[in-house]
Amino acid sequence: MTNKKDINAGIIIIGNEILSGRTKDTNTSTLATWLNSLGIKVEEVRVIPDKKITIIETVNLFRNKFKYVFTSGGIGPTHDDITSESISEAFNISYGAHKEAFSILEKYYNPGEFNEGRQKMAWMPVDANLILNPTSGAPGFYVENVFCLPGVPSILKAMLGGIQNKITGGEPILSHTINLRTVESEIAKSLTEVQNKNSEVEIGSYPFFRAGKLGVSLVLRGTDQNKIDICNSEILKFVNNKKIDIIN
Amino acid sequence: MTNKKDINAGIIIIGNEILSGRTKDTNTSTLATWLNSLGIKVEEVRVIPDKKITIIETVNLFRNKFKYVFTSGGIGPTHDDITSESISEAFNISYGAHKEAFSILEKYYNPGEFNEGRQKMAWMPVDANLILNPTSGAPGFYVENVFCLPGVPSILKAMLGGIQNKITGGEPILSHTINLRTVESEIAKSLTEVQNKNSEVEIGSYPFFRAGKLGVSLVLRGTDQNKIDICNSEILKFVNNKKIDIIN
Repeated sequence: MTNKKDINAGIIIIGNEILSGRTKDTNTSTLATWLNSLGIKVEEVRVIPDKKITIIETVNLFRNKFKYVFTSGGIGPTHDDITSESISEAFNISYGAHKEAFSILEKYYNPGEFNEGRQKMAWMPVDANLILNPTSGAPGFYVENVFCLPGVPSILKAMLGGIQNKITGGEPILSHTINLRTVESEIAKSLTEVQNKNSEVEIGSYPFFRAGKLGVSLVLRGTDQNKIDICNSEILKFVNNKKIDIIN
Repeated sequence: MTNKKDINAGIIIIGNEILSGRTKDTNTSTLATWLNSLGIKVEEVRVIPDKKITIIETVNLFRNKFKYVFTSGGIGPTHDDITSESISEAFNISYGAHKEAFSILEKYYNPGEFNEGRQKMAWMPVDANLILNPTSGAPGFYVENVFCLPGVPSILKAMLGGIQNKITGGEPILSHTINLRTVESEIAKSLTEVQNKNSEVEIGSYPFFRAGKLGVSLVLRGTDQNKIDICNSEILKFVNNKKIDIIN
């Protein structure tokens, strides 16, 4: 049995538009936030080009390395959408018109509108499981532990609900944030001491500028609320001693 | 001599806060846009945790695979900032107080304020080259082809100017965008034909929703303006035939 603390995931963002800087990726944040809420830790994200050999190699590496793999992008109808074909090759499954997907799309469009371009959206590994798309008809799919989602953020988001009952989460990852009006170098030493005493809580320190003022967010993460509370008290103690303001 | 078309880069985003979904990464887009403007193609991005062995392995892989490597994050003064130490190990260079960095920081702070936490920001591979930081004192650094920048987006951005003369760009990557009031499946077939005839222009097709309406952006990218123009004309021809509106 897998230890519930070890349930992890990897994310593969497929698309030249992210690598060229044209599009800011927001799917990583959407997927990671959702996975964390299910107690699944994202261990790695790769952004790779629309290149078949790279997609195949990355998918094959990730599906052996992580319990769950999510891909985003490249499942539309145009020539640069090669994810479905690449996943078929990665799993050595025929790539063709998926019966159920074909039938969903056929019903979705008006008679005469289900053209060749639209039919391509039904092409995928022929025995893949579908991920229904409540927004725009064309389904995503999954094969074993690899879930393939579209790149358009709003559509990807809408499809997550349909996956939730297909994956097994881990122990919920709890977090607590303390925002301080200080700079990291003022608290670095005390924070290291607290981290060393509380190894089961992961303390992240993130400087920020907000409304022209400097501050630091401390994020305490772990699976044991009690341990997070102890860690929190120890931090508040040195914060108080140093007369640092807490920002709400 | 390296072919000017082959000048590439890899980006390593270091930080648990991106993998937890807490923070949306914008440094990839900043770095990629800037590199593209210099004719440098970003081939891969990896987001990895604040974990020494992972940082070392990824840096060593990337520095052999790509002409330039950029890392973002983990060079601050707190316990979770382990990039500098990891880079030292990756290159097998002593990790210690960098003389020039120490002297910059010593001058930056008021007498008595240059505490242990602040001094840690001068710790890096001892013979690294500095990347000056016009915003907040603490410099970044580079060793051979690996450039280490901070995670805070505004500071990272401000430091790019200081790197420009340290890297050699390639042939500028030109791009042209056509926005259409259509859906991908309407143009997929014609677009494939144009792509097949114009192999030196990379055509990307990106669906979008804007102000409640569907559209598709076609992005033509390449190093030869003439070839982009030919490709553009061929696209406009079928767009016109299909009576599809162009959006400005």
